[in-house]
Amino acid sequence: MPHINLPSEFPGIRSLFMYRPETAAPLNHLVQTLLHDPHPTLSAGERELIATYVSRLNTCKYCSNIHGAIAKHQLGGDGELVELVLADPDTAPISTQLKALLKIAAKVQAGGKQVNADDIAAAREAGATDVELHDTVLIAAAFCMYNRYVDGLATWQPDDAELYDKMGKQRASEGYMTAPFKVNRTEQQLQNS
Amino acid sequence: MPHINLPSEFPGIRSLFMYRPETAAPLNHLVQTLLHDPHPTLSAGERELIATYVSRLNTCKYCSNIHGAIAKHQLGGDGELVELVLADPDTAPISTQLKALLKIAAKVQAGGKQVNADDIAAAREAGATDVELHDTVLIAAAFCMYNRYVDGLATWQPDDAELYDKMGKQRASEGYMTAPFKVNRTEQQLQNS
Repeated sequence: MPHINLPSEFPGIRSLFMYRPETAAPLNHLVQTLLHDPHPTLSAGERELIATYVSRLNTCKYCSNIHGAIAKHQLGGDGELVELVLADPDTAPISTQLKALLKIAAKVQAGGKQVNADDIAAAREAGATDVELHDTVLIAAAFCMYNRYVDGLATWQPDDAELYDKMGKQRASEGYMTAPFKVNRTEQQLQNS
Repeated sequence: MPHINLPSEFPGIRSLFMYRPETAAPLNHLVQTLLHDPHPTLSAGERELIATYVSRLNTCKYCSNIHGAIAKHQLGGDGELVELVLADPDTAPISTQLKALLKIAAKVQAGGKQVNADDIAAAREAGATDVELHDTVLIAAAFCMYNRYVDGLATWQPDDAELYDKMGKQRASEGYMTAPFKVNRTEQQLQNS
């Protein structure tokens, strides 16, 4: 049960956005800019993988499931790739550069000061630009916020994989600034029980 | 030295805001909403204390110094109170309610799932409302982002206490949406050497 009185038909961060529209506006604007808007070099799928990986390290069920689903749809439906990255970025079939960026993201998750000159040098060696390094650090840092926000208020986080996939498909297509995703909670709870 | 090529005359997060205005906009909007805009019950000084305390727990020099200075100016110049809260909220001369909110903020800093029903019940017992609980969790979560962003890119973080006090006075008065604070870095570096 959530720690505060949230609208019960919205899952995870969506319930918090409905509860407090004043803070929802900049929080949605930030995630739209970081993950969905056009980027000079990183694809939306790559950026969603960074967000998903950090959310999994923070063990946030809602965020890792929804961003994993968005990543899948941004990557042309390749859910297996998402699972391989979550299991171990080093052995996943991704570029050396993305592996280096995910390593930096994991350092940020553990604490900002963990990122050292060697991590940066390795990413540059693999071709990473300043903007990619900046955005990787900020995406990882931002999900250390979103994950704590969602878990710190004990929001409702459904178990239904199909629901996350449906929501993920919509977000991958429309981005983050559209209407929130309302679900039939009673139906979900029956499915989960 | 910063991990990426940042404008050298701006300290801490200000250098990142100048580097990437696309993400600066929502990040400034968020901190303005959380800490400076009018709040139903929490004063700006109380909210700045929560931000400062979390920044200190994350050992972020820039954020704890600048928000400590803003808190001081929002609290009528009472820098001693800020130091007492940072040293130990439980023995500081603040309300039982603010102590309970700071305890929740410390839990969020350690991880969202650390916040439990007893922490929430204790804060409610001391008079905390749902909006106060929500905003405390989000302020603490947001500073887990800002702190990682500032440290993860190894921004320039001056040592000069007078500089933070001057910047803090300006932010306390004007809020976060005004022009960034440019400093003479050469002069600062001489002072720090």
